[in-house]
Amino acid sequence: MLGVPTPTPAPEPTLATARLPVARLAVTEALARMATNDDEVRARHAYGRAYPDLVRAFSGDFSAAPDLVLFPEHTADVITALEWAEREGVTIVPYGGGTSVVGGVEAPRARPIATLSLSRMGRVLEVDAVTRAARIEAGAMGPDLERQLAPHGLTLRHFPQSFEFSTLGGWLATRAGGHYATLMTHVDELVEAVTMVTPRGVYATRRLPASGAGPSPERLVLGSEGILGVITEAWMRVVPRPRFRASAALHFPSFREACDAARAVAQAGLHPANCRVLDEMEARLNFVADDGSALLLLGFESADHPVTHAIERAVALAVAEGGACPRGVTIKDDGARGGDAAAERWRQAFFDGPYLQSALVTMGFVVDTFETACTWAALPRLDAEIREAVGAAMKRELGGGLLTCRFTHVYPDGPAPYYTWLAPPAPGRQIEAWSAVKRAASDAISRAGGTITHHHAVGRTHRPWYDRERPDAFALALGGAKRALDPAGVLNPGVLID
Amino acid sequence: MLGVPTPTPAPEPTLATARLPVARLAVTEALARMATNDDEVRARHAYGRAYPDLVRAFSGDFSAAPDLVLFPEHTADVITALEWAEREGVTIVPYGGGTSVVGGVEAPRARPIATLSLSRMGRVLEVDAVTRAARIEAGAMGPDLERQLAPHGLTLRHFPQSFEFSTLGGWLATRAGGHYATLMTHVDELVEAVTMVTPRGVYATRRLPASGAGPSPERLVLGSEGILGVITEAWMRVVPRPRFRASAALHFPSFREACDAARAVAQAGLHPANCRVLDEMEARLNFVADDGSALLLLGFESADHPVTHAIERAVALAVAEGGACPRGVTIKDDGARGGDAAAERWRQAFFDGPYLQSALVTMGFVVDTFETACTWAALPRLDAEIREAVGAAMKRELGGGLLTCRFTHVYPDGPAPYYTWLAPPAPGRQIEAWSAVKRAASDAISRAGGTITHHHAVGRTHRPWYDRERPDAFALALGGAKRALDPAGVLNPGVLID
Repeated sequence: MLGVPTPTPAPEPTLATARLPVARLAVTEALARMATNDDEVRARHAYGRAYPDLVRAFSGDFSAAPDLVLFPEHTADVITALEWAEREGVTIVPYGGGTSVVGGVEAPRARPIATLSLSRMGRVLEVDAVTRAARIEAGAMGPDLERQLAPHGLTLRHFPQSFEFSTLGGWLATRAGGHYATLMTHVDELVEAVTMVTPRGVYATRRLPASGAGPSPERLVLGSEGILGVITEAWMRVVPRPRFRASAALHFPSFREACDAARAVAQAGLHPANCRVLDEMEARLNFVADDGSALLLLGFESADHPVTHAIERAVALAVAEGGACPRGVTIKDDGARGGDAAAERWRQAFFDGPYLQSALVTMGFVVDTFETACTWAALPRLDAEIREAVGAAMKRELGGGLLTCRFTHVYPDGPAPYYTWLAPPAPGRQIEAWSAVKRAASDAISRAGGTITHHHAVGRTHRPWYDRERPDAFALALGGAKRALDPAGVLNPGVLID
Repeated sequence: MLGVPTPTPAPEPTLATARLPVARLAVTEALARMATNDDEVRARHAYGRAYPDLVRAFSGDFSAAPDLVLFPEHTADVITALEWAEREGVTIVPYGGGTSVVGGVEAPRARPIATLSLSRMGRVLEVDAVTRAARIEAGAMGPDLERQLAPHGLTLRHFPQSFEFSTLGGWLATRAGGHYATLMTHVDELVEAVTMVTPRGVYATRRLPASGAGPSPERLVLGSEGILGVITEAWMRVVPRPRFRASAALHFPSFREACDAARAVAQAGLHPANCRVLDEMEARLNFVADDGSALLLLGFESADHPVTHAIERAVALAVAEGGACPRGVTIKDDGARGGDAAAERWRQAFFDGPYLQSALVTMGFVVDTFETACTWAALPRLDAEIREAVGAAMKRELGGGLLTCRFTHVYPDGPAPYYTWLAPPAPGRQIEAWSAVKRAASDAISRAGGTITHHHAVGRTHRPWYDRERPDAFALALGGAKRALDPAGVLNPGVLID
């Protein structure tokens, strides 16, 4: 489709060919139980999963490797690690699953760097079945925490695209977007209480369904991306598995009508679990539709009651906006698995996405995704500006390429559009070309009033546009909070604020 | 019911009998257009609506009156006022409708005090009908903002008990609880963007349906109770008026079964707009039921679709917990007004409540309300501890009294119980007796793991218990933010933090 021959994949890097700097930190006695400066471990913690991370890793360049990796097993270990770091002037990079796509785990090398992995803190510690909440350690990865909740008949139902390799703590630190297209779109909404170890004490909020006591202490932790402390555990709201499901795929002549239909559904208060618009190219590339339509995929679910009336109303609203529903509504009650075939194909393509990106990177393609959110009124201009800017940048830098769009989440007052772009190889200058396209996309988002990130976080990559987006006075306030909790500045320097 | 003869109401205070301190601030030329130190205006801004406020005001004691009252008309005036206050060392108390029940508008008198009223900033400035959002100035009172939205066919649907006299800015500063018993329980959920003037610049967030870019800048403003800045306007999510409604009143043998039913409904994902449990005494005193039952009032509403299926399922869940529905379900579609008679009586009693309290205060009764939220698992102990502690304190201090409970809001992981207590007169020592009961209630909440406030805010009254509830590290962070935005400490000293 890009008009270039299929390149041969590059071989995977091995430890023998990996180039990484000499460790500047030794394993002292105090840290012996939890620290290592082994080269392979350091190399494995060098990067997240951003495009430049993949390119560097596949080329054997592990120059961003930390000097030490810490594996605390308890809150007390995290406290010990932060005390040590402050005393020794070491930078601490909190590390969950290493799936950051925004440079969140790669610190400046001016000071020695210790990556603090939560991988040994992955237990579900308590389940309160009456309240429907579970106390979960921050290092729990998606499949593992679901496996521990399953015997209780409960699930978190938070399925970001990184689910297989990302952790609860990472989701909380970055305000990850999850399964639900409406209502509980970010992991934020699933948090009952959170514990974060800071250099100035343990920040543990009270278990409460809600409170009006001052600014929310949880909300300052959520999205703090490791600059205020290390999230160690949280009480999370859990639910029984859905027993009733319904899904449908609506076809539209163009993206515009599909967007209008999504708006109608979002503003009707129907709360679908899935409400994904796919533009014509996105639908085709993901094998969801091959008739040139734009799509709206709708899904409803409940553990308590049939959702037939809800999906019928949603489909009626979509049809009124010009949609066709050629295969009708699929109802799966009482635990039957599966759904509409198009929705299933979409689901598989969704989880395959990151694997596909890695494969394409080994073949030299320049490929990435970015997302935003904007008001419904701002959407037409934002989408047009992005398509124009990214199209022009791909043409200039890479000779061309494809750009597709879907909505990952929708709100009564606006959607979260998610773009994927794919361009031909640019041997030797992939990262430079990628940077130019990324800059064009981010500038367009910023100009058109979107947010630089709906659920990929800020990290270091998004800083220039985040700095334009957030109020200067908020940066002053966040800086004040940072100085109060981390006066020595050991935690994740360069992320969110200077 | 209290076994005492009905006392004669005291006369209303007049300006002639009001005792207030001499104004310590003159109206300078720079402030001439917006300031006054007129005695009546100062007296009217002396207090909120807490019980001790009412007692003092009815007795003619206006010793808490500010030295000056400022009435800015635009954001520029607010900036001028804050610059002046910082220069002159004057305390600024932001003032919406003056309905604080926690001492939020009464500052320490060590420094001269200027109350900054937003009452001249009450306009709806813009309506974005596509996005369904409206830009509203912070001084708009409930009825007034609804009147301005009505021509657009839109409504905010935020109806706190103080609706008639409270303002958007006050709701945002205190995280007010509103109309919806589930989902959008606090005004927080209705905020798209907010503007706050701080001593270090204007803090204006971007209009976004959602974002994952760092900790939410809106959430630091919400609940900040005037210590970080003066909220001047917000983009609020608005909706069409509901066209479809359904309501029902379920009767239960006791409070416990009604609580279990509310939990079942809250955890079923049905999202009722009304889901209020009334204990036996609350139901009787509010003329909602006279058969000794505890009640669950259910209401559903939608602007888009019938809610019959939802209420039928909710009623079935309540019946399974032991509820009876003697009058069945009332369906009002296509804009018909009214609802279940019990629900209507409840609604009227709800809005009459503050008037009734004022009348009772003039007769000498000691009467107040307090609220909390807790997990479902914590509820039985919390309710028992509160009933025991408040009962004992009323008996000791006032010879007895009544205590009733309702739920104002419910969540999947817990309810927000709201208590009303009423005790016989205690001439000459009302405030002392009230303080003892308030302390007993607050200690019980704190011990049992509840929050000191679900939607009445912290102010100065709740400080001791708030200080136990919030993490110390959060207070450090909030203090850091405060120092960064208000280094001279002019804004609302003593509220939330020292």
